[in-house]
Amino acid sequence: MFQLDPVLRRDSILVGSLSLCELRLINDAQFPWFILVPRRNNITEIYQLLDEDRQQLMAESCLLAETLHDAFTATKLNVAALGNQVSQLHLHHVVRYDTDACWPGPIWGKFAAVPYTDKKLAEILQKVQVLLSDDLQLPGDDVDLYY
Amino acid sequence: MFQLDPVLRRDSILVGSLSLCELRLINDAQFPWFILVPRRNNITEIYQLLDEDRQQLMAESCLLAETLHDAFTATKLNVAALGNQVSQLHLHHVVRYDTDACWPGPIWGKFAAVPYTDKKLAEILQKVQVLLSDDLQLPGDDVDLYY
Repeated sequence: MFQLDPVLRRDSILVGSLSLCELRLINDAQFPWFILVPRRNNITEIYQLLDEDRQQLMAESCLLAETLHDAFTATKLNVAALGNQVSQLHLHHVVRYDTDACWPGPIWGKFAAVPYTDKKLAEILQKVQVLLSDDLQLPGDDVDLYY
Repeated sequence: MFQLDPVLRRDSILVGSLSLCELRLINDAQFPWFILVPRRNNITEIYQLLDEDRQQLMAESCLLAETLHDAFTATKLNVAALGNQVSQLHLHHVVRYDTDACWPGPIWGKFAAVPYTDKKLAEILQKVQVLLSDDLQLPGDDVDLYY
């Protein structure tokens, strides 16, 4: 069974499941910031994925990036597999604006997270869940099995 | 004809050409740091690539990442498409060590670049060119056409 890293679980909220990946929202209201986490254990680098998983990750990343770019009218998407702090493979997708607090630098490690209010959290989750509804399986009762 | 961004050209050295991408070394001896630049004009995000180019980029990125990880005995690879400063699509591949100056933070925008000495530059170029010799076309006389 897939095991999600406890730090990723603590710092993010499940948006839903794509074919390969969990889509999760980082709980930091300063940036629309999502991660894709392939449901594969013991993988730390993209190249360790099987070829079909690599292609699926590319497809899911592009779907998410284009959706976010349009929905949030981004200046730029930042897409990155870093993993220096949490080695379990996760692919960041960060909506950047040329007016945001870190622009044009990277966001990682810069500011402490500012958690969403309940209202803002519900809004952004619903927005993305609606936009990706053709491909996204929403969290259900079975989530308790591993969350 | 493919046009390379002048800032990328200034800050990096051509290692050779893969099927889709230029492979370039960032001229900063603090990190083994390479970029893949798809030879496509007017592309700023991965999702803007055609599907066959997306798959080829994934293949070239994985080949490069695995090669670098093994050859440089990396703690971690950082693979990222940021583009906040230079919008032309380029995919960073940075060899990270848990002993490097920025660990575990990101490297971008942290320290001024420290250019390679001629000797060190020749060593790292040759090392990577040999490792990728099955897939890499080395720079030739035609490079002057656009560099």
